[in-house]
Amino acid sequence: MVDLEELAGQLPETAVLTDADLIASYRHDWAKDPDAGTPAAVVRATCTADVAATLRWANEHRVPVVPRGAGSGLSGGATAVNGGIVLSTERMRRISIDPVTRTAVVQPGLLNAEVKRAAAEHGLWYPPDPSSFEICSIGGNAATNAGGLCCVKYGVTTDYVLGMEVVLADGTPVRLGGPRLKDTAGLSLTKLFVGSEGMLGVITELTLRLLPAQPPQSTVVATFATLTAATEAILAITGELRPAMLEFMDSVAINAVEDEMRMALDRTAAALLVARSDAPGEFAAHEAGLMVAACEQAGAAEVFHTADPEEGEAFAAARRFAIPAVERLGPLLLEDVGVPLPRLGELVSGVAAIAERHQVTVSVIAHAGDGNTHPLIVHDPSDAEQTARAHRAFSEIMDLAIALGGTITGEHGVGRLKKAWLPDQLGPEVIALTRRIKDALDPHGILNPGAVL
Amino acid sequence: MVDLEELAGQLPETAVLTDADLIASYRHDWAKDPDAGTPAAVVRATCTADVAATLRWANEHRVPVVPRGAGSGLSGGATAVNGGIVLSTERMRRISIDPVTRTAVVQPGLLNAEVKRAAAEHGLWYPPDPSSFEICSIGGNAATNAGGLCCVKYGVTTDYVLGMEVVLADGTPVRLGGPRLKDTAGLSLTKLFVGSEGMLGVITELTLRLLPAQPPQSTVVATFATLTAATEAILAITGELRPAMLEFMDSVAINAVEDEMRMALDRTAAALLVARSDAPGEFAAHEAGLMVAACEQAGAAEVFHTADPEEGEAFAAARRFAIPAVERLGPLLLEDVGVPLPRLGELVSGVAAIAERHQVTVSVIAHAGDGNTHPLIVHDPSDAEQTARAHRAFSEIMDLAIALGGTITGEHGVGRLKKAWLPDQLGPEVIALTRRIKDALDPHGILNPGAVL
Repeated sequence: MVDLEELAGQLPETAVLTDADLIASYRHDWAKDPDAGTPAAVVRATCTADVAATLRWANEHRVPVVPRGAGSGLSGGATAVNGGIVLSTERMRRISIDPVTRTAVVQPGLLNAEVKRAAAEHGLWYPPDPSSFEICSIGGNAATNAGGLCCVKYGVTTDYVLGMEVVLADGTPVRLGGPRLKDTAGLSLTKLFVGSEGMLGVITELTLRLLPAQPPQSTVVATFATLTAATEAILAITGELRPAMLEFMDSVAINAVEDEMRMALDRTAAALLVARSDAPGEFAAHEAGLMVAACEQAGAAEVFHTADPEEGEAFAAARRFAIPAVERLGPLLLEDVGVPLPRLGELVSGVAAIAERHQVTVSVIAHAGDGNTHPLIVHDPSDAEQTARAHRAFSEIMDLAIALGGTITGEHGVGRLKKAWLPDQLGPEVIALTRRIKDALDPHGILNPGAVL
Repeated sequence: MVDLEELAGQLPETAVLTDADLIASYRHDWAKDPDAGTPAAVVRATCTADVAATLRWANEHRVPVVPRGAGSGLSGGATAVNGGIVLSTERMRRISIDPVTRTAVVQPGLLNAEVKRAAAEHGLWYPPDPSSFEICSIGGNAATNAGGLCCVKYGVTTDYVLGMEVVLADGTPVRLGGPRLKDTAGLSLTKLFVGSEGMLGVITELTLRLLPAQPPQSTVVATFATLTAATEAILAITGELRPAMLEFMDSVAINAVEDEMRMALDRTAAALLVARSDAPGEFAAHEAGLMVAACEQAGAAEVFHTADPEEGEAFAAARRFAIPAVERLGPLLLEDVGVPLPRLGELVSGVAAIAERHQVTVSVIAHAGDGNTHPLIVHDPSDAEQTARAHRAFSEIMDLAIALGGTITGEHGVGRLKKAWLPDQLGPEVIALTRRIKDALDPHGILNPGAVL
């Protein structure tokens, strides 16, 4: 039994939660891992010193620590461990913006949307935009190298992280990088910690690169009678220009969204694309025209475009809402597989074949422009046989992505739910290399044990 | 004495050079480190297997290996070590471009300019553009996380590296990442190896992200009677828009360039800025107009702008030529210090004060838009007393950058010439962290010993 008194003595009065009811809500993230443990305590850190004290204590007593942002992760990266500590950064919410260097210094507990809003007050823009941006934390975004809809043109979280403060496993806080676009002094440690899913350290501050406000966007919406026509349109668009967004929903997702949002989407379509251009001035309309032509050429059933921001945003919002909408059909096993873009058609048709073979409903939505898809496997957990089929499909979809030269996770992270497939993607040498770095930085293995490796 | 026969037996016939004359040209990179050793041999690898065989052998026999690209490094990162191997990638020159994923797969020996040209054949663009782009290798660019003139808008090398093949110290080749814009499976190892200056592994292949061809640029040239006016103009420009280039030359550089190129530059000016916009269509002219106004507002002596690509390129070329031009005044100690942009004025005036105090000529040129400067300290190595003063200035300029919250190297790397200052910038905890990773990946310390750490 761990001596929580000693830990509590080093932290603010309300930092340590041990009440069973309160703790219960920290056992899971959105992946709802059925194997989640029950932690000995939740520490809600208020500052870097709290994080440092917690890790120092945990390292000394060999207590596992699961770092947690907003708990919106979809891979079980923040699943609690029996008898361990859940270390939440939700109370660390300071932010400052420097318009001259176009950087933000933020604490990890701030939500992505709050970072965007604070930047917007200075006419600036923080691009990465997970669909969950209203509820996911910027610290979690960095820990998973989160993506979103803008990545096809604007890249992922790591492209915006210039520096950080991170507390190492033994409780030592270190500062890496800073508000400099160029800095090659020493190893690229900042980038190593981005996407490390809490297994190397706990991020307590981020220095983020911001861009000038995004120009107004033109939006193109197209429906297709076949998946093939839709993936052809995707390749035609990305081969011609860089869309600011290029999203895909299949028939199940279209209908699930339409059930909830009543947007008069074509329920008979096999696929729907939402594409956007944010090129300046009349170039947005020009690019929208090129995208319309590409869709028509690929045999779109219907295509329209709008320069009206509200109308365009409604379609982007519909796409963002697709996961919760499909979830109303039943609990989901949520995939995050990505492939090099030319293989997208094979991935989408391969997923359909897997769904057919195992007789499960799989809805595919995708950040199509960068080849990152989210097959959503609907299943009824009370039906053991169906659940088993769903898990076989889950596994085969990852196998397929790997076979197509892709990844098991484009933006959600490996967490606990996908780690069994990681060696198949990376190979034994890269796993061994990862293990060497993990052991060097966390020799007692206290940081997020069971995640990734 | 190392058994080169055993090594040579595993490599193609012409791979191993031991002739003293041939070896001599591999002792130095462009930093011309006076403490360079004499290697036992130079291995000119033709493929990954050659690199793997060399490292396997070297690791077994504890022979130091200095990886080398084109030898254009400016920090002594490829300075040879006595009795070691110089492992050159100059013969590894394959490239393939995939226009659909907008990626290039390149071997490390290709020059940056060759990558740019191959991309251009497909209407694509590889942005990173060190001034040395005609003579520096893409492998060296990745090893140093090289920058250039475009970085103010387009970022640095790491922003374009999606994947790589790298051979570890024990000779194991591993593949990291790939042609996927989003991939967060496992640690961000690709990014860790970028900028690792040959101390963690030898890069044998890179997967690079490409962009559509850059639009035509408008160029603004402005001269200023004072350094302060010039740095004010820089902040005004970057506060208002994202220039595609924002370069600075001081009076010494202007005159040195004018001596060589006869462009009718104003020899009386204290500073010259070259700024460019690549915004599409008439937006380039619009941004050029904003930059002209910002320069005039800051009190520019003369400002003009041109949309003529050749005329604009002549000024960019003049700026790129500044280092060789100043070098004709005498051998240089070349700095690469960077600061957060608001501190640029303090850095430039501080460098002038250091030059004054030590009575040495220091010319400052800068990638001003991202705060990355190259103070060039001219000295006569045959004058020991002057050389000592030059080295004191060299040291104090790095101290100044660190004191201003900056970096000792923005884009050239630490190599051997700057490593004494690295602990002052990073602090003992980050150095210890770096050492832990180095020891984990290269336990026998054979990879580029003496560089960085």
